[in-house]
Parts: sequence; C-alpha cells; structure tokens
Amino acid sequence: MAFRLCAARGGAGRAIARHTVGTAWRRHYASATQPYFPDEPKEPIVKTEIPGPESKRAIEKLNKVFDTRALNMMVDYTKSLGNYVADPDGNVLLDVYAQIASIPVGYNNPALRKAATSPQMVSAIINRPALGNFPQHDWADILETGILKVAPKGLNQVFTGTTGSDANELAYKAAFMWKRQQERGGRDVDFTQDEINSSMINQAPGAPPLSILSFSSAFHGRLFGSLSTTRSKPIHKLDIPAFDWPRAPFPQCKYPLDQYASENAAEEQRCLAETERLIKEWHHPPAAVVVEPIQSEGGDNHASPNFFRGLRELTKKHNILFIVDEVQTGVGATGKFWAHEHWGLETPPDMVTFSKKAQTAGYYYGNTELRPNKPYRQFNTWMGDPSRAILFRAIIQEIERLDLVRNTAETGAYLYDGLARLAERYPDEIRNLRGKGQGTFIAWDSPRRDEVLKRAKGEGVNIGGSGERAVRLRPMLVFQRHHADLLLERLERIFKS
Amino acid sequence: MAFRLCAARGGAGRAIARHTVGTAWRRHYASATQPYFPDEPKEPIVKTEIPGPESKRAIEKLNKVFDTRALNMMVDYTKSLGNYVADPDGNVLLDVYAQIASIPVGYNNPALRKAATSPQMVSAIINRPALGNFPQHDWADILETGILKVAPKGLNQVFTGTTGSDANELAYKAAFMWKRQQERGGRDVDFTQDEINSSMINQAPGAPPLSILSFSSAFHGRLFGSLSTTRSKPIHKLDIPAFDWPRAPFPQCKYPLDQYASENAAEEQRCLAETERLIKEWHHPPAAVVVEPIQSEGGDNHASPNFFRGLRELTKKHNILFIVDEVQTGVGATGKFWAHEHWGLETPPDMVTFSKKAQTAGYYYGNTELRPNKPYRQFNTWMGDPSRAILFRAIIQEIERLDLVRNTAETGAYLYDGLARLAERYPDEIRNLRGKGQGTFIAWDSPRRDEVLKRAKGEGVNIGGSGERAVRLRPMLVFQRHHADLLLERLERIFKS
Repeated sequence: MAFRLCAARGGAGRAIARHTVGTAWRRHYASATQPYFPDEPKEPIVKTEIPGPESKRAIEKLNKVFDTRALNMMVDYTKSLGNYVADPDGNVLLDVYAQIASIPVGYNNPALRKAATSPQMVSAIINRPALGNFPQHDWADILETGILKVAPKGLNQVFTGTTGSDANELAYKAAFMWKRQQERGGRDVDFTQDEINSSMINQAPGAPPLSILSFSSAFHGRLFGSLSTTRSKPIHKLDIPAFDWPRAPFPQCKYPLDQYASENAAEEQRCLAETERLIKEWHHPPAAVVVEPIQSEGGDNHASPNFFRGLRELTKKHNILFIVDEVQTGVGATGKFWAHEHWGLETPPDMVTFSKKAQTAGYYYGNTELRPNKPYRQFNTWMGDPSRAILFRAIIQEIERLDLVRNTAETGAYLYDGLARLAERYPDEIRNLRGKGQGTFIAWDSPRRDEVLKRAKGEGVNIGGSGERAVRLRPMLVFQRHHADLLLERLERIFKS
Repeated sequence: MAFRLCAARGGAGRAIARHTVGTAWRRHYASATQPYFPDEPKEPIVKTEIPGPESKRAIEKLNKVFDTRALNMMVDYTKSLGNYVADPDGNVLLDVYAQIASIPVGYNNPALRKAATSPQMVSAIINRPALGNFPQHDWADILETGILKVAPKGLNQVFTGTTGSDANELAYKAAFMWKRQQERGGRDVDFTQDEINSSMINQAPGAPPLSILSFSSAFHGRLFGSLSTTRSKPIHKLDIPAFDWPRAPFPQCKYPLDQYASENAAEEQRCLAETERLIKEWHHPPAAVVVEPIQSEGGDNHASPNFFRGLRELTKKHNILFIVDEVQTGVGATGKFWAHEHWGLETPPDMVTFSKKAQTAGYYYGNTELRPNKPYRQFNTWMGDPSRAILFRAIIQEIERLDLVRNTAETGAYLYDGLARLAERYPDEIRNLRGKGQGTFIAWDSPRRDEVLKRAKGEGVNIGGSGERAVRLRPMLVFQRHHADLLLERLERIFKS
C-alpha cells in the first residue's frame, strides 16, 4: 500500500473567521489547510453496527485465547490511514482516541513506513541488544538524533525503558537511590553491612521505608510500584498489595480555569499545603513527588501553572525530587512538545517520564547525581528497544517537517472554540469544558458519557472516556481543522438525538 | 547483506566418537554437522584489545548521555552473524552469552530478516495497537500460530507483556486477584465498599497483605513487585523499598546432582519443609510460589525434578498458585522447549512466564478462573507488542525447521562431556560443573571467574557469569558441535595460561 502524505501549509488557515455552530462545519476546510493525508477518507464510513458480523467472528475467535472483555473495536490496521481507523466490516471511523493517545502521526504514515523498512530498523528488530552490556555502535547517535533531540530543557540524559509504567518505576528507583545516597552522605559512602544484609530480606535499612507521593485521581501505571501511586479507579487497584505511600489531594478546579481564577487559586493553595504537610509528616518519607501535567486517565483534571510551580518549590524546599509524568501529555498533544513547558518553571523537573506517542519509553534527567553511584543498580536485560527508539526518531522528524506541534496548538484552539459554542447550545451535554490553550488535549463532562461514546461510533467517530464522566479527546498530531469540523458536526448530531 | 542459512543434518554426528581433551577439537566438525550459518567465520578474529580504539571512541560518546558503566562490549550488529558477534574494531567473537541469553537463532538470521520486512511486521511497527481495546483483526491468528503454538502442556491461554519483569508482575497480579476471589467466595461475589475505599489509600482489605513466596538467590526481575521476589544480589535491591514477602531456602545441591543424590534429596526435603512452614505461617500469606527451573542470574543453581514436583504438591495442598519463571530457561535452551518439561509434573504449573529468547513476554495459563472476574483489572495500554509476537512466530518456525531443540540437547550433551573431561584435567578451573542433560544450559564455578571471562575475550569468546563465581554458558540454539569444539579449545588455552 502506498499512501501520499503532503506537507500542509501549517498556519494558512489561521486568519479564517470562526464559524458559528450549526453551519456546515466541513465546507471551510478546503480553504483552511491542505490535508496531511490526501488519500484519507473525506468522511467516516459506517456500513454496519459496530461490531459488525466480521468483527464478531474475529472477537469470538480471539476470546478463546485472550481476554476480550475490554475490547472496544476490532481493527484492521492495514486499511487504516491517517486519522481514520478501519474495522474488518468496512467501517472507517475518525479516530480521536488514537490507541489510548498513543498514535502520534497517523496510521500507515509513509515516513514511518520508510523508517520501519530501513536496514537499521530491520537489524534492530532481529538483533535486539542487551543495551546496558552490549549497546550497538550507533546507539549514541540514535539517542542524540532522536530521543535526546526533544529532551525537555535542562535534561540532557536518558534512561530508556519499554512502557509508561516501566518508565515511572525506573524513575522512582532512581529517586530512592538518590535519596538514600543523600542520607548516607554522598556518592562515595559505601553501603553498610546491615544495609546489604537487610536488603536481601526486604527489610530496612537496606529496603528503606521511603515513599513516592502522588495525587488523588492520578494515574501512573499498573505495576506494583507505579500502581501504588495510581489513584484513579478502584478497579485498577483492588486485590493488589500496595506500598503504604501518601496521597495528596489534587486540586478540584472549576472550569474554565480563568473564569474561576481566585477560587481555583485557593483550592490549589489548600492542596499545596496538604502536600507539604504529607512531605513533612508521612511516616514513610517521600523521596519524590510525581504528578501528571493534566491528569488523564483519572478524568482530565487540570490545574494552573501556579500549582505546578508551587510543587516544584516545595520539592526543592524539602530536598526531594520532582517527577513529571508526561506519558500521556508529552510529544505535542498539548500544543507544546512537553506539557510542562506551559508552566514557566525556573528550575526544570528532576525527571520527566515519557511513553505512548513516543512509541518508546523512559525518563529524562539532567543532574548526574541521579546516575546511581555504582553500575548494575539501574539495569535490566533490554533497557528499552532500539527499534522503538528509531521509530521515535522518525516520529520526531515528521513532527518537525510538518510543524505538528504548532498544528496541534492551532487546531486545538479552533476545536476548543467550536466546542465552547456547542456547550452554549447544549449546556447539558458539554459540562466543564476544559483544555483551553492545551492543544487538542480537551475534555468535558457528560451526564450520559457512555451513551455518547457508543453513539459516536454510529456517527463514525471513535472517542474515549476518562474518569467517571469525562469525554476525552486525544486525537493525533495530524488532526486538522477539517477533522475538527467533522467532529463538531457529528457531536452536534449526537447531542440533538 | 544476504547471508545463507542451511538446514543442518541434525543428528548426523551423534555416533561420532567423543575425543579426549587435548586433541584438535575442531578437526571433527565438518563430518559432524553442516553448519546452520555457512557464512559464519570459521573461528574468532581478535584484532585489538577489547575495547579497541573505535569502541573506546563510541563508548566515550555514549557515556555523555547514557550510563556505560555496565558496558561489556560495544557491538556492531550489522557485522554480526549467527553465533558470532562483531565490534567496531573488527573483532569477531564466538558469543556464548547471546545478549544475556536472549538471542535464539543467531544474529542476522535470514528467516527473521524475512519476517522483519514482511508487510505484517511493518504494519505492526508503525500501527502499534492498544491490544486490550483495539486488537488487530489477525491477533488471534498471530497468537495461535506463534506464542500459543508452543504453549506449555495444559496451558492454552496467554496474557502478553513486554519484558520478563513485566511478565512476572502480571502473573503475580493474576495470582492475587485469584486468591482474593477465592477468599471472597467466588467470581460472582462483588467487592465490598470497604474494599473499594481502602484500595484507594493502599490499605487492607482492598490492598490485601498477601505475598509471593520466592527462594534465596532467585532472580525474577527489577520492578517493585518482581524485585521483592528477587534475592540474588544486594546490588539489585539496595535502597529500593520492598514488600515484606517470604524467602524460602533454595536447595544448595552438590554437583553432579546424581553423584550426591541422597544428600541432595535430604537438602531438598529440608527446603520443602521450610517452604511449607512459610506458606502456613508467614504473616503475609502467599498467594503463589514463584520459582525458576534453574536459578540463572543467582548463580546457576539446580535442583532435582523431585524438588519441583514437591513444590507443585505443596502449592496444591495449600491452595495457592505455582508460577514457573521460564524467562531465562524457556525456548529450548535446556534441550526441552520449556525447562519444566524435565520434571514430569502430574499437574501443570498454574502460570509459566516467558521473555528473552521469545523476544516478547507474558504468562501462559490454563485455568479460566485466572481470568479476573471483571474487565480492566488486568490491562494496560499496549499489553505486549504484535511486532514482537510476529518475530517470536518466526523464531518458532526456525526452531522447528532446523530441529533446534534437539540440536541443543545433543550439542549440550557433547559440550558437557567435553567440559567434564576438561574438569578432570583442570579441577581447580572447573568446579561444580552442572547442567548435565540440560542442553547447553551449563555452568561451573571458577575461583578466578572474572579473570576467565576477561581472558576469554582475548581468546575470541564472549562468555558471561552468574552469581558470585559461576561461569555461565548461554549459547544460542544454533550453537553446534564445531562451536563447542572451538569453545573447549579456547577454554583450555585459558586454563593453561
């Protein structure tokens, strides 16, 4: 299959007047921007119920060997293109969920296809190295031209991993090693025999009673350490042993944020005060605070830059680390490459974790004190995957070539305005609209959320939810105005129904 | 690059007389088997010290952005072939460590290259699905013709993951959910409000004080849950908070196992008794016992099939699960596809975890009671990686085509005999030789282990260690008699020096 991909005239549509709700959204797109995927469908195709008969057969077959109860939609990726996802029944949907926010530059993107068939990629697939012991000769180059090229300001080192949960746990381990090093008196102070012995039976002081502080409704993953910091939903946590780590309140802000600035500031102050109290008093002292720039899985909860600047100051004041979990917010979705760029921090975070749209994972850091004082302390067999690092490099090149972070900022602003107008007309359907100025990282609350998501499929749009009642938009970075128009049009149909 | 690969006449050399140590090991190989990789070097090439000048430059460059203190050897994978690993200085070494036991069928294997450039693989790389929500239409087929085709007897289901640590933690989570379901009274009994509320603050009963029992010197990974069951070395565990889970003694057997059968049986009985005591008395009751068929990272420690059958019986008796960690032992290395096939179990393990040579990861299970009672309890964004599952399928096909499990059993027996003869001549160099009848999964203790490994590089052989003093052989499944001859010859040179 060979699809064409064009460079869009990124900002060409910026001056075009916004139209009111109820006009034909799509009429304007041709004049606004050239599509990145000229061969993309012009609109969704809905041929059958979803799942249709072919999908049902495939689901039944799969269910015999693989749990399918969380299955949302059976997909034929070979027939998917750009922003459109296809199923085995010939249905083709505009996809604003994008594999739980993890497809960056469109299905079957030709530039990624080129990278995927390059000799370097093929070698990486069939000769997977144990990176810590036997790195490939061009690993530094792959990092520097890829993962590290987009490193957050102030962070020039990386430890690579495989998934978001893995990235966070690796960062937590780095935090604990750093904290104990501080307590011990520096990098050159060796472990005591008591530490060595007790570590082997999972007891203090070798296995120290330290913690990671996270926030109510946070999501940081599902492995044992990361799950201990996840606070979004009981279904993720029930029956799994967890560390006795502190949970601070995440601000429950009112939206739009700027309209309730003073109330929100007071709420954020309350949360910062409680965070500080926990840092000082929790019986297992935190080595780090971990936070998402926008809580995603937990319901798309926002706070102001002030809150995050406050957290940064608190962690500095109490000599603990500040870990920013950019697994879902990173790689352009908020209209900045990293969402924490919106905060105007004076001191960068100590660590920033990434995964999803990066298609690889890990944590960035800058302070070399965060390299453990001995080898093999932060280590595992694969330590990531060069094939995925090569893919991320191709993704970065595509983002740069098409100016996709700017596209996302602009398309997001356009989409937000359209949704705001819809919210005026359908105030019961769109409540607490949020994500203004945050690219396409937009959500709202719906009193009939699950029904809206289901009906959206019938209208040819694949949308996800977050938290208990939020509709979350997580389109790709190649989501353009004409897609926004189409989305708004289909949403209005649902709201009218 | 196009390398040829031949089907070897697998058993053709079986009748050839074993030669004594000191003869020219390699002379016999041509008549024994055809090489799988006809273009492989006939012997190692050592041009420079390792690392040589080119490698040193690459290491220096990499060290600026990536911790290189665990670096063993800088590798040029594009120039590596079959059992031979190349570095940027033109050194080409016989590799019997194989990326910490994770390369199954040789570097740049043409069959894997073909799979890696197939349209299905390319799509899997560039369109990575969120498998739990949006599986690809051919996912059941990929599983059935690949991962599940080699499922251990009695286990016909799989949950896929990304790494060995991930696989073990997923299995632990399944065990905890199963155990609590039992305690609660079955699949249909819902969570109490108290469980729901307490889970969110990491407290019992929602986050239950259950445990996983593991053994002294075990290695099961490095994330927080898996690390809590790892007991091999303090350097992995120091400064990382851990769960208060029980550690049972792993038998400290004498080698060769059959020569000390009665002493070993007594030692195993002692360990089983203590395991049972811990299962009954540990203050955080175990939901499962996890064990490696041969403890690998912890020093290549063996026990008899009786011990493992005893463990299986104990877990049944006390209604807890038996998890076999085949991350390092699986996929042919011990002369069976799964090492636990050596045990002759009456009841299969409840779960078997895999990674490394599979190039993907996950756990097998059979009992559908191990599917959690609700969706989204065992879930994450990617849930594995179809591109790696496709690669594993190609690996399985290659193993079948070349009869590589049998090759490994036979080459392993041949190699073991050669090492036994070397041990007779150099009893101070080869102590506690072990792995008889376990394919090429062979190890011995050396009083100057690190020096032997270092000197081996100079002799053109890449070997790894395990535990404090073991030399561990972990060749690929394409390791043949002529490679064994060469290895024995080079080892003898080292022992003579």
